[in-house]
Amino acid sequence: MRVVRLADNSYGKSDVRITKVVRSGPTHTLYEFEVQVRLGGDFEAVYTRGDNSSCIPTDTMKNTVYALSHAREFHSPEEFARIIASHFIESFAHVRWAEVSILQTLWSRIPVDGRLHEHAFTREDSGLRVGHVRHERSGGGAAGDAPRGPAGVAPRGGEAVRGGLRGLDVIKTTRSGFADFLVDPYTTLKETADRIFATRIDATWELPVTAVDYNRIFQDARRTILEAFATHDSRSVQQTLYTMGEALLARVPEIAEVSFTLPNQHRIPVDLSPFGMSNANEIFVATREPFGVIDGTVARE
Amino acid sequence: MRVVRLADNSYGKSDVRITKVVRSGPTHTLYEFEVQVRLGGDFEAVYTRGDNSSCIPTDTMKNTVYALSHAREFHSPEEFARIIASHFIESFAHVRWAEVSILQTLWSRIPVDGRLHEHAFTREDSGLRVGHVRHERSGGGAAGDAPRGPAGVAPRGGEAVRGGLRGLDVIKTTRSGFADFLVDPYTTLKETADRIFATRIDATWELPVTAVDYNRIFQDARRTILEAFATHDSRSVQQTLYTMGEALLARVPEIAEVSFTLPNQHRIPVDLSPFGMSNANEIFVATREPFGVIDGTVARE
Amino acid sequence: MRVVRLADNSYGKSDVRITKVVRSGPTHTLYEFEVQVRLGGDFEAVYTRGDNSSCIPTDTMKNTVYALSHAREFHSPEEFARIIASHFIESFAHVRWAEVSILQTLWSRIPVDGRLHEHAFTREDSGLRVGHVRHERSGGGAAGDAPRGPAGVAPRGGEAVRGGLRGLDVIKTTRSGFADFLVDPYTTLKETADRIFATRIDATWELPVTAVDYNRIFQDARRTILEAFATHDSRSVQQTLYTMGEALLARVPEIAEVSFTLPNQHRIPVDLSPFGMSNANEIFVATREPFGVIDGTVARE
Amino acid sequence: MRVVRLADNSYGKSDVRITKVVRSGPTHTLYEFEVQVRLGGDFEAVYTRGDNSSCIPTDTMKNTVYALSHAREFHSPEEFARIIASHFIESFAHVRWAEVSILQTLWSRIPVDGRLHEHAFTREDSGLRVGHVRHERSGGGAAGDAPRGPAGVAPRGGEAVRGGLRGLDVIKTTRSGFADFLVDPYTTLKETADRIFATRIDATWELPVTAVDYNRIFQDARRTILEAFATHDSRSVQQTLYTMGEALLARVPEIAEVSFTLPNQHRIPVDLSPFGMSNANEIFVATREPFGVIDGTVARE
Repeated sequence: MRVVRLADNSYGKSDVRITKVVRSGPTHTLYEFEVQVRLGGDFEAVYTRGDNSSCIPTDTMKNTVYALSHAREFHSPEEFARIIASHFIESFAHVRWAEVSILQTLWSRIPVDGRLHEHAFTREDSGLRVGHVRHERSGGGAAGDAPRGPAGVAPRGGEAVRGGLRGLDVIKTTRSGFADFLVDPYTTLKETADRIFATRIDATWELPVTAVDYNRIFQDARRTILEAFATHDSRSVQQTLYTMGEALLARVPEIAEVSFTLPNQHRIPVDLSPFGMSNANEIFVATREPFGVIDGTVARE
Repeated sequence: MRVVRLADNSYGKSDVRITKVVRSGPTHTLYEFEVQVRLGGDFEAVYTRGDNSSCIPTDTMKNTVYALSHAREFHSPEEFARIIASHFIESFAHVRWAEVSILQTLWSRIPVDGRLHEHAFTREDSGLRVGHVRHERSGGGAAGDAPRGPAGVAPRGGEAVRGGLRGLDVIKTTRSGFADFLVDPYTTLKETADRIFATRIDATWELPVTAVDYNRIFQDARRTILEAFATHDSRSVQQTLYTMGEALLARVPEIAEVSFTLPNQHRIPVDLSPFGMSNANEIFVATREPFGVIDGTVARE
Repeated sequence: MRVVRLADNSYGKSDVRITKVVRSGPTHTLYEFEVQVRLGGDFEAVYTRGDNSSCIPTDTMKNTVYALSHAREFHSPEEFARIIASHFIESFAHVRWAEVSILQTLWSRIPVDGRLHEHAFTREDSGLRVGHVRHERSGGGAAGDAPRGPAGVAPRGGEAVRGGLRGLDVIKTTRSGFADFLVDPYTTLKETADRIFATRIDATWELPVTAVDYNRIFQDARRTILEAFATHDSRSVQQTLYTMGEALLARVPEIAEVSFTLPNQHRIPVDLSPFGMSNANEIFVATREPFGVIDGTVARE
Repeated sequence: MRVVRLADNSYGKSDVRITKVVRSGPTHTLYEFEVQVRLGGDFEAVYTRGDNSSCIPTDTMKNTVYALSHAREFHSPEEFARIIASHFIESFAHVRWAEVSILQTLWSRIPVDGRLHEHAFTREDSGLRVGHVRHERSGGGAAGDAPRGPAGVAPRGGEAVRGGLRGLDVIKTTRSGFADFLVDPYTTLKETADRIFATRIDATWELPVTAVDYNRIFQDARRTILEAFATHDSRSVQQTLYTMGEALLARVPEIAEVSFTLPNQHRIPVDLSPFGMSNANEIFVATREPFGVIDGTVARE
């Protein structure tokens, strides 16, 4: 009598790094992706009986990414993620869902003599772009198949496409305060009407599956988030998060919902009084730890 | 008319690093924890209206960890996580759930002249121990409050306690193969009856809330996992995962379920033939990327 | 009779992170520095006898950085490094040399409605700027005081100022080859006339101590390096290194010498032939390891 | 007329990760090394003229490490580093010096039923072992060839062998103080007779080139350093550094000199008084930044 069971399982390949150069004339287009593939499905015998006949090796997943990057045309991480995820659903009847996450390094053309160079690039964005697809076989999906995407939610059947950005560093030196908060016996934080607000933005937004210009959406979304951050009079990280979400949904109609994770990268005023000096909100210690983290999802009504 | 809404939210403090020294006589006991706190509840006005009156500052969460580490007695990360999570549920009616994750650095006493030293320690385990508690207010819990714990599942009301380990490095040089797998047009991997199996084990197990000896359970679990890894004749990472789970549930009755994440840290045989040499399964390249990842959860029937 | 001796020593404080906001009107200027201080001198008794009377605590070094950031005016990491190093030489007769390294995070103003914002910033450079000063007491300097600066050379007495950049990511997709190299029995690398050249530039240059505009020099140097990288027809990483150095010395007369460290971040063509495809220099694997490293220093005759 | 010159140069391959399994009977011996090779010599034309005829590709260096790991017998990172460095000096007349650094992952056999397992391993040391060799051609060595080894010193001609350890984490909870230090206007640190002393030890020692048992020396050195750390009544990190050096030279006669780098991983007492509690040297914040760094070299008279 079996007394234990495999309650859940999935597997895949991480950190498949691929460079694609499209050489249509002297001006080259460069894609640099880090791809992650995860599959769920009827793999129980691999675990419980050592029967590998249903096991698609993760080495094959890697090869598939390489081959599809050559065989198929795409212009965005979202499109390439859709291509990869669909491949596994269409090729293997025992795969119930496929998730593909792509991190894209954002290269900008180097300006030379006032013109953008044709084939030389540098990074003008410290962050990364994200494309994420969960493709679930229609009609399928058992209880144990927990989704692993950024927002953790996937439809029963069909594709869910998400875009986003990771690690967009921003800071503002005024128009940010934090006051009137709840005070309990363990509260020592002072209220402030003027503090530094620094964060590294992670944002993930839900996108249509039907044909849209994912690159235009990304550029609009990134610019909107930066502008909303810059211009908001912030009463809390939470309020700025909501404001950025509101602005994004107002300006980019294709986006149905956006989730943010905002670490609060504290800048703490230094007490200079031991040295006979007063600190007029000028000198701060930048601390890496501990740090606050604010999560929130803003959706259309 | 409002056209957007806050669909989900939570916040907290990460990377609260605390050292506690218990000086009961000359033999000191040392705890080093990295604590993370997350709260969910009625915080919507903080986001949408900039009304901070319900906002428990993350700075207060940090202070609370410090104060409770002094005021309360505990002997394990699981116990301390329970104390912290319960504090927030009991202190604030508008908090619907609290999650506390603790990573513990595992210090071992330095041997001097054949005896374990009273107050000097080194690390004999490259990994970390984990204690995790999700405490949900009884009767509460709204749809948008997605849990964020390792296994992503929490009861409606009450506490869920988990233990685990992170980053336990292991390697075996034989008794591991991978053959008879599915072959498709993208498969180039060769079958092998004798390969190196290297991984960094992450494991999380479900524990009782009622009084048990969490430290004894951790030691038993860690030893059982290591022994199962060492002695298994592996046909795949998946099968070894399941075998470790079976062994753990057989040997540690308090554990109801265990989840593993096992990266496959590939060691690839070097082709020495260009140098007129043959490689008798002796020389390998250790690669960091790309890497396979195998997940699985083993539960009692 | 003493049988061992202290042959060398130095100490200091690392990772002193400081933010300074200069609020001259509505347009704020933001400096974010990570400072490292090292001192050498007559500290032997601290080590050998536990006599701390000559020991300037590293905590004091940290406080000194904070206080000087307030008390003194500066516009560049080079100037601030000079201020800090001179402070220790002037304040303590037993300090023989002081080295100060500053890493500056490069913040750019966020554009809003076509204008650069007054107080909100993001990062448009993934790299960091460096200012480094070694200040040695005139007439002093004993044998054991090995310098620790980037180029490892310091004058006997006086200040040596260096600027530089760290982690400037660049890539070019053509106009780069590697051929006609030495071939020995262990060579399997194929010659190529067209490969991808990707690197993360570290550069350190020697600067005058007398008043110059360190910020203008940095901007000129950075732009010159990027342009030289973009426009060079490269026969090797080494040759491009030398070409960037030549261009820098030609365009920026204040720089006497420049040292580069260039990791070769290989992009390796994927063999697609197992899948019936040919790879026309289009699809590459980006590998992190192993990687080549090329060092070189270019100086004026 | 040439106006610039190549003042210094060297190059090599980093992060060559290799696994060697010696299968002499059922008990396997496992070596896991990360190798770095650097060469100096007559490579100027590669830089200045794009003439690659003297350039040994870094890819060839990698292959050489693989081939020598098979062709040659060794039992320690020091021996393997000597083999690699000598190869380049003996094979290429234009190579003036070769430096090889090896980081070894320290695997321990997993105990199963009270016996150490034959082929399954885990890590019982969070640190790494180091072997380092600089081999300089006899009679050679020009001014610009700055050595790059841990201690930065190399003989003119012949081999210099060093061993060491990296990242050995230690902590002691008493018998450590810091008082009677220099006080200046920027000093706010309080004297303490009982503080926590935590550090991550890096140590590099000079070894004979003639045949010695490098593995026995490493084990003796590691144990001696741990014991000296545990038993010392510390008045400063500096004094403990010197004490560990003294002990090492006293116990391990083959070691001529040892250099330590000791970060001071501060544990700062938490002020619990705002919560009506007193902290009897029991609760500390573990901070990662800023941190002190103490360097020192202890040599025989």
